[in-house]
Amino acid sequence: MSHSVAILGASGYTGAELVRLIATHPGLRIAALSGDRKAGMAMAEVFPFLAHLDLPVLSRIEDIDFGGVDLCFCALPHATSQAVIAALPRGLKVVDLSADFRLRDPAAYERWYGKPHAAPELQEEAVYGLTEFYRDEIRRARLVAGTGCNAAAGQYAILPLIAAGVIDLDSIVLDLKAGVSGAGRSLKENLLHAELSGGTHPYSAGGTHRHLGEFDQEFAKAAGRPVMVQFTPHLLPMNRGILMTAHVRGEPRAIHAALAERYAGEPFLHVLPFGLLPSTRSVAGSNFVHLGVIGDRIPGRAVVVSVLDNLTKGSSGQAIQNANLMLGLDETAGLMLAPVFP
Amino acid sequence: MSHSVAILGASGYTGAELVRLIATHPGLRIAALSGDRKAGMAMAEVFPFLAHLDLPVLSRIEDIDFGGVDLCFCALPHATSQAVIAALPRGLKVVDLSADFRLRDPAAYERWYGKPHAAPELQEEAVYGLTEFYRDEIRRARLVAGTGCNAAAGQYAILPLIAAGVIDLDSIVLDLKAGVSGAGRSLKENLLHAELSGGTHPYSAGGTHRHLGEFDQEFAKAAGRPVMVQFTPHLLPMNRGILMTAHVRGEPRAIHAALAERYAGEPFLHVLPFGLLPSTRSVAGSNFVHLGVIGDRIPGRAVVVSVLDNLTKGSSGQAIQNANLMLGLDETAGLMLAPVFP
Amino acid sequence: MSHSVAILGASGYTGAELVRLIATHPGLRIAALSGDRKAGMAMAEVFPFLAHLDLPVLSRIEDIDFGGVDLCFCALPHATSQAVIAALPRGLKVVDLSADFRLRDPAAYERWYGKPHAAPELQEEAVYGLTEFYRDEIRRARLVAGTGCNAAAGQYAILPLIAAGVIDLDSIVLDLKAGVSGAGRSLKENLLHAELSGGTHPYSAGGTHRHLGEFDQEFAKAAGRPVMVQFTPHLLPMNRGILMTAHVRGEPRAIHAALAERYAGEPFLHVLPFGLLPSTRSVAGSNFVHLGVIGDRIPGRAVVVSVLDNLTKGSSGQAIQNANLMLGLDETAGLMLAPVFP
Amino acid sequence: MSHSVAILGASGYTGAELVRLIATHPGLRIAALSGDRKAGMAMAEVFPFLAHLDLPVLSRIEDIDFGGVDLCFCALPHATSQAVIAALPRGLKVVDLSADFRLRDPAAYERWYGKPHAAPELQEEAVYGLTEFYRDEIRRARLVAGTGCNAAAGQYAILPLIAAGVIDLDSIVLDLKAGVSGAGRSLKENLLHAELSGGTHPYSAGGTHRHLGEFDQEFAKAAGRPVMVQFTPHLLPMNRGILMTAHVRGEPRAIHAALAERYAGEPFLHVLPFGLLPSTRSVAGSNFVHLGVIGDRIPGRAVVVSVLDNLTKGSSGQAIQNANLMLGLDETAGLMLAPVFP
Repeated sequence: MSHSVAILGASGYTGAELVRLIATHPGLRIAALSGDRKAGMAMAEVFPFLAHLDLPVLSRIEDIDFGGVDLCFCALPHATSQAVIAALPRGLKVVDLSADFRLRDPAAYERWYGKPHAAPELQEEAVYGLTEFYRDEIRRARLVAGTGCNAAAGQYAILPLIAAGVIDLDSIVLDLKAGVSGAGRSLKENLLHAELSGGTHPYSAGGTHRHLGEFDQEFAKAAGRPVMVQFTPHLLPMNRGILMTAHVRGEPRAIHAALAERYAGEPFLHVLPFGLLPSTRSVAGSNFVHLGVIGDRIPGRAVVVSVLDNLTKGSSGQAIQNANLMLGLDETAGLMLAPVFP
Repeated sequence: MSHSVAILGASGYTGAELVRLIATHPGLRIAALSGDRKAGMAMAEVFPFLAHLDLPVLSRIEDIDFGGVDLCFCALPHATSQAVIAALPRGLKVVDLSADFRLRDPAAYERWYGKPHAAPELQEEAVYGLTEFYRDEIRRARLVAGTGCNAAAGQYAILPLIAAGVIDLDSIVLDLKAGVSGAGRSLKENLLHAELSGGTHPYSAGGTHRHLGEFDQEFAKAAGRPVMVQFTPHLLPMNRGILMTAHVRGEPRAIHAALAERYAGEPFLHVLPFGLLPSTRSVAGSNFVHLGVIGDRIPGRAVVVSVLDNLTKGSSGQAIQNANLMLGLDETAGLMLAPVFP
Repeated sequence: MSHSVAILGASGYTGAELVRLIATHPGLRIAALSGDRKAGMAMAEVFPFLAHLDLPVLSRIEDIDFGGVDLCFCALPHATSQAVIAALPRGLKVVDLSADFRLRDPAAYERWYGKPHAAPELQEEAVYGLTEFYRDEIRRARLVAGTGCNAAAGQYAILPLIAAGVIDLDSIVLDLKAGVSGAGRSLKENLLHAELSGGTHPYSAGGTHRHLGEFDQEFAKAAGRPVMVQFTPHLLPMNRGILMTAHVRGEPRAIHAALAERYAGEPFLHVLPFGLLPSTRSVAGSNFVHLGVIGDRIPGRAVVVSVLDNLTKGSSGQAIQNANLMLGLDETAGLMLAPVFP
Repeated sequence: MSHSVAILGASGYTGAELVRLIATHPGLRIAALSGDRKAGMAMAEVFPFLAHLDLPVLSRIEDIDFGGVDLCFCALPHATSQAVIAALPRGLKVVDLSADFRLRDPAAYERWYGKPHAAPELQEEAVYGLTEFYRDEIRRARLVAGTGCNAAAGQYAILPLIAAGVIDLDSIVLDLKAGVSGAGRSLKENLLHAELSGGTHPYSAGGTHRHLGEFDQEFAKAAGRPVMVQFTPHLLPMNRGILMTAHVRGEPRAIHAALAERYAGEPFLHVLPFGLLPSTRSVAGSNFVHLGVIGDRIPGRAVVVSVLDNLTKGSSGQAIQNANLMLGLDETAGLMLAPVFP
């Protein structure tokens, strides 16, 4: 028996990725798609790669009948989600892919996003969607907040190390390399092929990237005290993929052991043998995360590298993994698609 | 109940693509993998993107026990396949992805490949693997010869037009744009990222590309008389995808109608509305083919464009589609994966 | 002694390419730069790659003092140029890089560009900027109209063949592969890296591309009668470069001889030995054109391939070559920069 | 009057880049080119982008007459250079682009390169080629050792900070992003377009990259005591360019001031305004270096980013800059070519 889902914001990349994954999901069927500016269009017009699917026409959110819908994926822009989700039927399960419900503290939200939250009571109710660390809460949740894609890549590398007490908490340096689809389908000069291909540059440097709010929240929770990390993201000429290089202080073998132990049995997390580091190519198009650890020549220093696909494990695949839990389905249902290489 | 398959030549791109597709195929399981130069290695070492799968170690062909194997995919280099397949147990079904059994005429084989065929009796037995045109023969075949990837792209565009008699047979110009994975995992200077990215050039021009042997064979069969096409391939800075631009003479609407009619009901072939032309991005990573037709400003001239993923519908996806038929499975089993975009 | 030039529309790619080339030009100095929407900004802000140059701030056109200016490059959008150029001082030499003055016939202009020309008397005066074919007229001209980049690539391949009478005029098929910088710095979804990289598609097919107006005009002039070509452009995932594949009927060796003879002594045009075809990589970043000819297996059919860099020989390099002639400088001054590879 | 130069190893990327730059250099002319495995071939065959130049045929080193040669560029593989340079006429000036003479200490050489040096007396004589820091010595040198490209990027960012005493010497973390041409024209699987494009991975991590030998040597010299940095390089899907992200501890404004002051007046080094960080695109194809500094949200932490083109300022442009000094030419002669964008 399959569950009926709606996707709000289906004309963006994370919306389209949801459709791609649900296309071969055994337990979900798409009942409604919204795309306000493209309402009335067929998905095959907006995304010709989905032409083989029999999909609902894009509609306006207000025209969707949520009557038979079991769960709603909300892939709307940041700040838009709050109001939309607040207006949805109370009984509807919701997985939000925006940043709106990631931070539990209203003050932190306002600090990182520049204005007060419009739905603080929902903010309180929302469960943070890093599945492997909130599995039980997600199973019982009505509203799950998908993590930032960069935030996920960093937490997979660092959270078990904090929990195991194997790294110095005051010298964590996160140097991130991100593919461009994370910026969405936005019309910006620096996202044009002519501007982006063939080069790289840092962005949101200097401790200003909003995903720092998630790091601060989750790392403090794990450590039982504030943890401030340095985080410098770079934009790379590739479409999918995030590679997080964490420069940390601690005993390299102990760090590797902490990751290997924490993720043993996790279906989507794969820790490479000590001394090997992963490539984004090994997870592209999939819900997998690969992690590696190597020791530096300087004793007591290590590099931890995590890779994931920002559109899959970093957003839409994670969203489906959480939806599976919320609907009582097998957690991996529809998500065992192998990566695509080359 | 699932069927047991072996993949010979699993350390190349088409071998890895077979593994990727079989990973989520409901009716096939991998019993053996060969990779002579990499025998003894785990697939996760050769292709880290397959690390999540529980796969047999790469072995030598002579060490494989074909006892319980139902079907063997042969993804070996051209000219190697002949001897290997001739030595396989007679009862074993075989899908060959090399060029060795594509041409039925021994003289044509020798002309295009430069030496006599080593297994002419198998050559005679082999069925040409263009599924939509040889479905019944494939169902009954023991040995199916996968088509050339470029040859497939051209035939999907042209065969129905010859059959319907809607184009001039003596002025077909095929201008092809191919991604680099079609050249395989070969160490050649012109396939290096530094040499290939950011530019394009023709290759095997002047009527020398070997896939012309397939065009000659199949177009003559459809026309009932020899048909010589001009065929000029170009290498593009992209990994997957073929776009075939066919410049033809005929009435554009009649051409569109012939394609639309011929492919109505085909699960993997999609003809766009008249006047729209497809992009390779719309089929990347999938078994789908998109086709489009537009009329030129010169009356009686048209452009037909077909796109497919050379590693999927152009080789490994096609191979599985044919294997499904040979094993009595649903033809689309395991192949409805949506394309990956962006 | 150096000549003073102004560049109108310096915030686009062709404007920036003019600045790049003039940076090491021995006979030109930049007196003024306009960029209406970015007026008041430094070029180093708009194009950080030009930060090492001492350049005028971007201003509005109406604020430029053309007093000491010898020549004005006009790199404004199509349709904008007409009015701007009509308002410039009559004594000022002008090289226009837009499409506004390419077509001599007002009716042809209106047909291809959808509205009447605003400055028909200038249209009559303008000399078509294909240097190697209009050298003497350009030397004497006050207003030179830069060619379309695709139009240049096609004419270099075809014009000498028409003149020499070595090809059939009624079966010319031009299949073009173009890099994305030709589309300019425009914010369009299909020009985003995430959409464009890794794939290809045709555009402006069906005889609708405006550069056909230039082909019609110049080919008819060379042939002494109308010549209609089929022209199908494709967009490729590369920033610079055009490769034109011309499928023609004629004796291949005679075709090669006609090109080699016509371009002997030309400083920027290089005809490869018979049977070799060029790559866009061999001319990227330079003012050179490479041409090659190969015979098809079908007697009497040939493929002619020309490559050039759309921003250099296809627009800004050509513009400077023409300016050199107009100012009495050495035609190659500042333009002998080698291509950049890899 | 121009000086006569020979280029040994002209069939690789750094050799070709030397030819590209010398093509428009006012004071150098190429007297001989060697390329052992391609001896007897024309450069236009090996590098078609150089077809417009009138160049000597590639010869074997032993066939070159160094009689009239003023300076020899040696672009041979590491370990090969030593013996070749030892055998050159003593009076010949030499700029070596290999790693063979970068380390002054024979023990350090052996540790990083795995075998004893074959020409220790030359090693002692050689001057390290980081022009801005060894200008006077280079002017008087007979043998100059070009720096590693990554080593250059790191030193430009860090050396002035050590000299000014504005950073903590024991917590320098260098996270490097490198384009693929730095790996040369080598036939390796991971350098193929199909493997490299669209993804990223670390390489030579864990303190094993040989350029660490240069960092250790030069940073210790500047600090007057050993300085061990952490250095983790990543390979990016781009052909040219290095971006070095240095995570350091120190007062951000003081760091910026130290760089700005040190590089004021340097023709090729450009420090961006405080808070801005550079892109590799801004220097591609040129001899320029851009540097930027930003403060982190954590007080006392800063990020310094330097970018350069590995083939130009990182090797062949640097080599010509040094040759200019050694020959008494203007240091910037032939090197003011603007970067190429897009």
